[in-house]
Amino acid sequence: MQPVTFTNVKITDKFWGPRITVNREVTLPIEYKLCMETGRINAWEWQPGKPNQPHIYWDSDVAKWVEAGAYSLATNPDPRLEKQMDDYIDLLAKGQLKDGYLNSHFSLVEPEKRWTNLRDQHELYCAGHLMEAAVAYYQATGKKKFLDIMCRYADHIDKTFGDEKGKKRGYPGHQEIELALVKLYRTTGEKRYLKLAEFFLTERGRPSPHYYNQEEKARGEEARAVESYINLQAHLPIREQKDAVGHAVRACYMYAGMADVVAETGNKELMQACRRLWKSMTQKRMYITGGIGSERFQEGFTSDYDLPNDTGYAETCAAIALVFFAHRMLHLEKDGQYADVMERALYNGVISGVSLDGKKFFYANRLAVKPEVIERGYHVHPAARQEWFGCSCCPPNVARLLASFGTYVYSHDNDGIWINLYVAGSGKFEMDGHNIEITQETAYPWGEKVGIKISTETPSHFAVNLRIPQWCRNPEIKVNGKIDDISKLLKKGYAQIRRQWKKDDMIELTLPMPVEVIEAHPDVRQDAGKVALQRGPIVYCLEQTDNGPGLDRIFLPVASLMERDGSIPRQDNFEILHKPKLLGGITIIRTVAFVKNTDDWKEKLYRPVKSNYTKKQITAIPYCAWANREVGEMLVWINSFSTVDNQFCM
Amino acid sequence: MQPVTFTNVKITDKFWGPRITVNREVTLPIEYKLCMETGRINAWEWQPGKPNQPHIYWDSDVAKWVEAGAYSLATNPDPRLEKQMDDYIDLLAKGQLKDGYLNSHFSLVEPEKRWTNLRDQHELYCAGHLMEAAVAYYQATGKKKFLDIMCRYADHIDKTFGDEKGKKRGYPGHQEIELALVKLYRTTGEKRYLKLAEFFLTERGRPSPHYYNQEEKARGEEARAVESYINLQAHLPIREQKDAVGHAVRACYMYAGMADVVAETGNKELMQACRRLWKSMTQKRMYITGGIGSERFQEGFTSDYDLPNDTGYAETCAAIALVFFAHRMLHLEKDGQYADVMERALYNGVISGVSLDGKKFFYANRLAVKPEVIERGYHVHPAARQEWFGCSCCPPNVARLLASFGTYVYSHDNDGIWINLYVAGSGKFEMDGHNIEITQETAYPWGEKVGIKISTETPSHFAVNLRIPQWCRNPEIKVNGKIDDISKLLKKGYAQIRRQWKKDDMIELTLPMPVEVIEAHPDVRQDAGKVALQRGPIVYCLEQTDNGPGLDRIFLPVASLMERDGSIPRQDNFEILHKPKLLGGITIIRTVAFVKNTDDWKEKLYRPVKSNYTKKQITAIPYCAWANREVGEMLVWINSFSTVDNQFCM
Repeated sequence: MQPVTFTNVKITDKFWGPRITVNREVTLPIEYKLCMETGRINAWEWQPGKPNQPHIYWDSDVAKWVEAGAYSLATNPDPRLEKQMDDYIDLLAKGQLKDGYLNSHFSLVEPEKRWTNLRDQHELYCAGHLMEAAVAYYQATGKKKFLDIMCRYADHIDKTFGDEKGKKRGYPGHQEIELALVKLYRTTGEKRYLKLAEFFLTERGRPSPHYYNQEEKARGEEARAVESYINLQAHLPIREQKDAVGHAVRACYMYAGMADVVAETGNKELMQACRRLWKSMTQKRMYITGGIGSERFQEGFTSDYDLPNDTGYAETCAAIALVFFAHRMLHLEKDGQYADVMERALYNGVISGVSLDGKKFFYANRLAVKPEVIERGYHVHPAARQEWFGCSCCPPNVARLLASFGTYVYSHDNDGIWINLYVAGSGKFEMDGHNIEITQETAYPWGEKVGIKISTETPSHFAVNLRIPQWCRNPEIKVNGKIDDISKLLKKGYAQIRRQWKKDDMIELTLPMPVEVIEAHPDVRQDAGKVALQRGPIVYCLEQTDNGPGLDRIFLPVASLMERDGSIPRQDNFEILHKPKLLGGITIIRTVAFVKNTDDWKEKLYRPVKSNYTKKQITAIPYCAWANREVGEMLVWINSFSTVDNQFCM
Repeated sequence: MQPVTFTNVKITDKFWGPRITVNREVTLPIEYKLCMETGRINAWEWQPGKPNQPHIYWDSDVAKWVEAGAYSLATNPDPRLEKQMDDYIDLLAKGQLKDGYLNSHFSLVEPEKRWTNLRDQHELYCAGHLMEAAVAYYQATGKKKFLDIMCRYADHIDKTFGDEKGKKRGYPGHQEIELALVKLYRTTGEKRYLKLAEFFLTERGRPSPHYYNQEEKARGEEARAVESYINLQAHLPIREQKDAVGHAVRACYMYAGMADVVAETGNKELMQACRRLWKSMTQKRMYITGGIGSERFQEGFTSDYDLPNDTGYAETCAAIALVFFAHRMLHLEKDGQYADVMERALYNGVISGVSLDGKKFFYANRLAVKPEVIERGYHVHPAARQEWFGCSCCPPNVARLLASFGTYVYSHDNDGIWINLYVAGSGKFEMDGHNIEITQETAYPWGEKVGIKISTETPSHFAVNLRIPQWCRNPEIKVNGKIDDISKLLKKGYAQIRRQWKKDDMIELTLPMPVEVIEAHPDVRQDAGKVALQRGPIVYCLEQTDNGPGLDRIFLPVASLMERDGSIPRQDNFEILHKPKLLGGITIIRTVAFVKNTDDWKEKLYRPVKSNYTKKQITAIPYCAWANREVGEMLVWINSFSTVDNQFCM
């Protein structure tokens, strides 16, 4: 099973279309400007004593911008953008050393330290991002210069690292090159690249002696405890790693690389590890928004069910990396659970990372923000996106994801086609040599109907697999007007319709979207007694600008929101309003809640319970659209009166 | 109004008695041993190149141990202890420089840096603790050697700092010396010491130019923004400080010093600041345990109503400092609210800092602990007390508090006597030249009756002021068997009984102690939807060892725990059991709660609400006794079903 690449996918969707356009027209030029102004692009011309000394991360920031730009070129030719990229590639060509080595920091600033600190110095990480960029640029333009540069660099890396005698048995402190090497292999056919990716993965965390300890010794430093490498997922060999631990972006880039190697090699140990780590992450360590990594100092995972809302992290890059991993697992396993998580992240925790105008970014995507929180090292309000960061990984990461968004919509295998996401537009496939086009008409995620037209040159027999989202209770499918029994079609999260398809066959999919009142697993202590509102794939939040300050004083009367049998929320308790002019066009939810009064508290901080409440209409907006108006409070998990209380009244 | 000093107070109390005895018999010797082993005591004999180079904090750690030891000597003579202290004082005498300067680190390690970095280097802080120790030692033994040493040092400091020409206009980065100078003034009558204390307070935070900026310039460093001194309460002059901010121990030591200066000088601006900062702290920034300082990196205050339970801090020293401040405010204002807070801290957040066996200490006193929390920089489980710390301020601070505990029980003024705390034992006063003794018989805080016997040599007329705790709804007073109308006696939290007292007059005070279900102010988001159990002054908690893991899955059915009118908990819902053999003798509370089931969750992390619960008896123990059995989960704030739900059932 393969994704249908974004160049064969047309997007006319009202949800994604504007975001993709803004990404191309606003974000990419801004990021170029910032890469230029901060010295990142001209890092290659830096000279000692001059300002803007190249930082160890910089090549990767520009690389992601190039990758995003290349995806954009592929769908929307733009000579000016192409020239900017060519100029940068010329700089790279000049900067590359004779042996193939290519890193602005270590070539120009600390040449003697090359490959001496894989643990911290991000050389292989930067190399990986440059490889991804080179592949994207080659695919977009057909020009080989960048690809050749990166093959020379990959060859150099391959000569340097490996388990053959005389090579270093090292691996990156920040994973990324693994998946990039697989891309390079797929593009060039050079098996050494795949082998090197597999080496980096299987070598990782091997003890006795641990590679980072060897490095430390060589640098004259004290050896650290191997357990301390948990943040880099290098505390244990991958085959022994049970939980998703450490830095979340490193983790998911690594998992994605593992899945890529599995796809090419069938490596069973890596496959088992992929499944195990997926479960740990998505069943115990993921926010409802698809955010991952709940600890901001390590930017990483903590322990099972530890998902703080207001002090959490959920880096934008981590949600994107989760999408990469989910997408790969989907193709390995053909299981809708992976697409469900991918959808959760894409519609919520990924795009919350960028403002609707495409100009500002979140590094951390918290699920609750209080007005005046003083936090060590944070000088910017957690509800205010920023233009750029010292380590500016997130902005170009969002850009490359949005520029290639189409890739996530459809997949195909020999047996048929797969619709993973419901996005208005079309996708083109070849099936047994015939051209097939799928067209979706839908107002998803706001509307519950998806019209799917199948256009075939000649009638042909194949399966159309429609993802039935896990959030949907009562989906309905009609083929050419006739209702199909979904329960008979359903297989691992997809409804499989296998038949002779001919021109203009129509599927009408209905995914009813009642407002759902969601609870977290009882062991998520930060969400105990709280609920979140969700409609379709969209997770909602409350913002101060709609509801006033003191969002933590709001309680949802869950008992009375539900049908008598407690099975489902009574929809007449909610107003569902589509607001085409609000925040780019969103559907809001209104309902009546209870707000704890404070006026009878008079100078007290604690007292015997005698709460009293005032009824108040509250307005929830999609989490993905928050922080685009005023800076203020926000929360996803709303206090609630629990349903169990009904018991006491009977 | 003056406290009755602990040497005139005898404690036979079953709650405090054992803690004070353990403090004397176990804690003090252990702390001496650790001060010796770590090189703190012999810091004065350190030589360059030798191990255990004196650290800038060390003098203060030993000073607090000497202060504690002195208090202990005063009530329980102990030649061995006295010899240990005399030997240390001899070291100090030898170590003192000719000009009076006395600091082991700066005398021996960095003599050239003396007084060059008041902001960070704790010289004045160590001086303050040594002064407090000297005063205590002089009062306990009558020996003047240590006091003379400290007067010489104080004279040196007075020559160095002040607003006179040629003096430095500096002040300590860590406040403490202010209150110590007032003690020194009260002991010696030397007004310069009082004046210097006032100078340090009123000079603090003065801009244009800010003293720390001048220091930074002199050290060749870049000047920091004045706002960054907020953690040291030096961002603004004290008269302009509105909120309790920054490092909580520094804050309360400073506030206590301010109150001392007010007591001696009547300085109105400082008095207003004391009242304002008291309100900010106790009405918006204090845990229910009397813990303060909710942020662990700054060890400080954050913003109003921000009181995280599991990631909070509440340093033991900070709760002790709050007691110091409260005690001083009580004497300035004769208002029970100060004694209420003092009681809250003493019975909960102060003594939680030390294990029942007196051997181990908490630095941070959290209100919730999860089993497996990974936190940056913490390698010890937050439910495990430690023997000692690198910066070991808390252990000797607890020791000096407990060794002088009697001081907090009684006060007196010209008009009468004040009973601030209900503690079995007795206190001796002089009133108009007559000796008076008050004897309390009580099982407080477990029992609700306090028998108070007044013994006078000859009948005399004065007022006995009994604190009526704010937590008590229906107190009752009988004088010689006759019920008095409390409402007529009550004045700012004390019931004032003014009469001719004669030998063996008896007051019977009843402070009914139903189990109270407490809620926090609705703006404390971390406690939203949660309640705490309190009985008398004792705040309760749940421990894993009694209730199993998953304490966050427990919900208290508050609606059904209350009387029908919601006014008060129905006591037959609780079992109140005194367990004389458990944890030194405690009263536990049992009740029935609902535990959220997890068995129907099957690999999910989020789902539409359909909670179901199992009834379970839970056991709550006093917070002050937690973490004395197994290491495990704990929480104070318990999830609840809110009372408002009754509305939906009618």
